[in-house]
Amino acid sequence: MSIQDINSAIRDVIDFPKPGIVFKDITPVLHDPKLFCEVIDIFANNCREKKPDYIVGLDARGFIFGAPLAIKLGCGFIPVRKKDKLPFHTLEKSYELEYGEATLEIHKDALKPGDKVVIIDDLLATGGTISAAIELVKQLGADIISVEFLMELAFLNGREKLKEQLFNALITVD
Amino acid sequence: MSIQDINSAIRDVIDFPKPGIVFKDITPVLHDPKLFCEVIDIFANNCREKKPDYIVGLDARGFIFGAPLAIKLGCGFIPVRKKDKLPFHTLEKSYELEYGEATLEIHKDALKPGDKVVIIDDLLATGGTISAAIELVKQLGADIISVEFLMELAFLNGREKLKEQLFNALITVD
Repeated sequence: MSIQDINSAIRDVIDFPKPGIVFKDITPVLHDPKLFCEVIDIFANNCREKKPDYIVGLDARGFIFGAPLAIKLGCGFIPVRKKDKLPFHTLEKSYELEYGEATLEIHKDALKPGDKVVIIDDLLATGGTISAAIELVKQLGADIISVEFLMELAFLNGREKLKEQLFNALITVD
Repeated sequence: MSIQDINSAIRDVIDFPKPGIVFKDITPVLHDPKLFCEVIDIFANNCREKKPDYIVGLDARGFIFGAPLAIKLGCGFIPVRKKDKLPFHTLEKSYELEYGEATLEIHKDALKPGDKVVIIDDLLATGGTISAAIELVKQLGADIISVEFLMELAFLNGREKLKEQLFNALITVD
């Protein structure tokens, strides 16, 4: 099992969610236990030496990678969710979409200053979602030691929005 | 760490998502690495001997338990998602909510006849969501060997909807 095997399993779905878009379908990677385990092992090896306290996963595909990573590293898991899903006191951050905007939330008591955090999501596209999540984690005073993605769509230039933030993508699509 | 410790960490949030509802907030369980690991270990011990091929997790909190369970047992992971989130060919099943209805989807190629499946979600409430997921898995011909929940709200009688389906909840709230 290698990065190439993982990349080969990702399926292009044409015209989803709308005409002209080629959607990267990761479900075949999850479906194959060897590939899914390999992905989690790579993430764990990337993050272990930085000794994170918490893994922050983004709603909803980030949960699929973040929760096993937290278990593997013995960290707590913190969900960043779309608006009105988290029940307790929250911080929220809105960001622009192609049409309109969306809002992410985190529980205010999820992190405290000095906590060491890895943020994880499946995909770095234009970078709007991850930038909002980074902002929420920083507002709570935590230190982001890494941002991890399964895949970066480099042609969408999301990395420009991440500025000086250290990040890592297992697969880069040019 | 025991079931009682897990139960004690679940937080009651009054009037969420609307007045009169007491929401069971599981995020403190995820936040504590010992509790989160214990939950996944209990699910794994409940399921291991049945030798599942796949863990089916329900969008979105079911992903947080289902993905680590799949990694721990060496199974594939299959997401059941809310409508219009899965990109490939899907089966869909609608179910009633208090007001209106919702629809779940599964990829048609996710399961084949004879596959052994565990379905997992955080909460058994009225049972509408899990019943729709069970129906989707059965339509694909797979064998459901167990349905697992972190918590059952017994006063909502969701178990009546599950009929003869074997299920297990770590915590029961009467």
